[in-house]
Amino acid sequence: MGKKAVILLSGGLDSTTLMAIAKQEGYELYALTFRYGQRHENEIICAKKVASVFNAKEHLIFDIDLAKIGGSSLTTNAPVPKERGINEISASIPSTYVPARNTIFLSIALAWAETIGSRAVFIGVNSIDWSGYPDCRPEYIRAFQNMADLATKTGVEDKEKIKIFTPLINMAKGEIIRKGISLGVDYSLTHSCYDPLKGEGNGSWVKPCGVCDSCLLRKKGFAEAGVIDPLS
Amino acid sequence: MGKKAVILLSGGLDSTTLMAIAKQEGYELYALTFRYGQRHENEIICAKKVASVFNAKEHLIFDIDLAKIGGSSLTTNAPVPKERGINEISASIPSTYVPARNTIFLSIALAWAETIGSRAVFIGVNSIDWSGYPDCRPEYIRAFQNMADLATKTGVEDKEKIKIFTPLINMAKGEIIRKGISLGVDYSLTHSCYDPLKGEGNGSWVKPCGVCDSCLLRKKGFAEAGVIDPLS
Repeated sequence: MGKKAVILLSGGLDSTTLMAIAKQEGYELYALTFRYGQRHENEIICAKKVASVFNAKEHLIFDIDLAKIGGSSLTTNAPVPKERGINEISASIPSTYVPARNTIFLSIALAWAETIGSRAVFIGVNSIDWSGYPDCRPEYIRAFQNMADLATKTGVEDKEKIKIFTPLINMAKGEIIRKGISLGVDYSLTHSCYDPLKGEGNGSWVKPCGVCDSCLLRKKGFAEAGVIDPLS
Repeated sequence: MGKKAVILLSGGLDSTTLMAIAKQEGYELYALTFRYGQRHENEIICAKKVASVFNAKEHLIFDIDLAKIGGSSLTTNAPVPKERGINEISASIPSTYVPARNTIFLSIALAWAETIGSRAVFIGVNSIDWSGYPDCRPEYIRAFQNMADLATKTGVEDKEKIKIFTPLINMAKGEIIRKGISLGVDYSLTHSCYDPLKGEGNGSWVKPCGVCDSCLLRKKGFAEAGVIDPLS
């Protein structure tokens, strides 16, 4: 039995690259995806494909209805920012911020890691080409790690703690894509859009809007990497 | 409009005392209870009564199925420890430990506090007459506070952060009960048992087992306070 890693997988390009990195490092992949009340099911559909392609040992789709809490344009009907400049995106915390989302997701990942005997949690946060979210910064991750070591039975009793890995945190979007391509990632499996357009046919959401912050950061990344986005 | 507090309310004697303390301090009470896959619904029934008696402004019963994660005798069919000595209870982390439970609960409380504009989260952790859980200790709460300040928009942008209050953390069980009684708490509304016996009649769980760790700590508390437990 190999060493196990819990991977926070949204089916976006960052978390998909993360799957490739963890796999290359020899981990058995335990993918964790949240159905948290986001605007569309596209994330879940993509995450399922990615988990399958990477041969995840398990893929847990965990229901947690953060729309009951509210406070974000991703979980309510409030409009998502569109057509902003790249510098504007990271200048302040946007309405797409979901209160304490990464803390909630990491806490559940921590619980699962402890239960299955894993000592590694991977999260694809990024503080370079980022969206202005406070819970993507290195100082936040360090504080979470410190708290996690005190929170769990594993942290108290075992020499080897559960470690939060953030291999993308200091990479520009273009670098992330180049890294993924070098590892054979097929980015046509991924999505990034906050607010995709409804496609024809079976009614599943398929077409990125192209103008939300997340689409703009993705566009910038593919341009930097000098690669054509398979979704474009 | 008064100042708002989110109170983690299980309907046990600690969290019910917490409601009384926060009320006395002039807070509007936003009670938060988790249906997390615990062995019985009794917690939810008691929490509803308590929220109502204390005239909570809102009572959010939040569903999060930690039984999907497992790892605890409170969310699986594994037996709960019974008839242990009081010193044995806190000597090691028991099977009733739920991986990362307080971290998950506090994270969701943090999200709710941020959304409703509250700057106070109350949690009834106790490190004196405690159950050996790592996530009840002062050092854990300090680390959570530090992480929370970095995690949220409020933490980054506002002068007044969301503060985690733990007024019971250094109180013995008897003190907690005396404090509650001085504030008029009716402990017949509360429950403590991990594994209550099925009552007659409508099938709701009503009778504490009397021998699990939680029943034993409750018994010790009422004895110390010199008061008869209305449940006995």
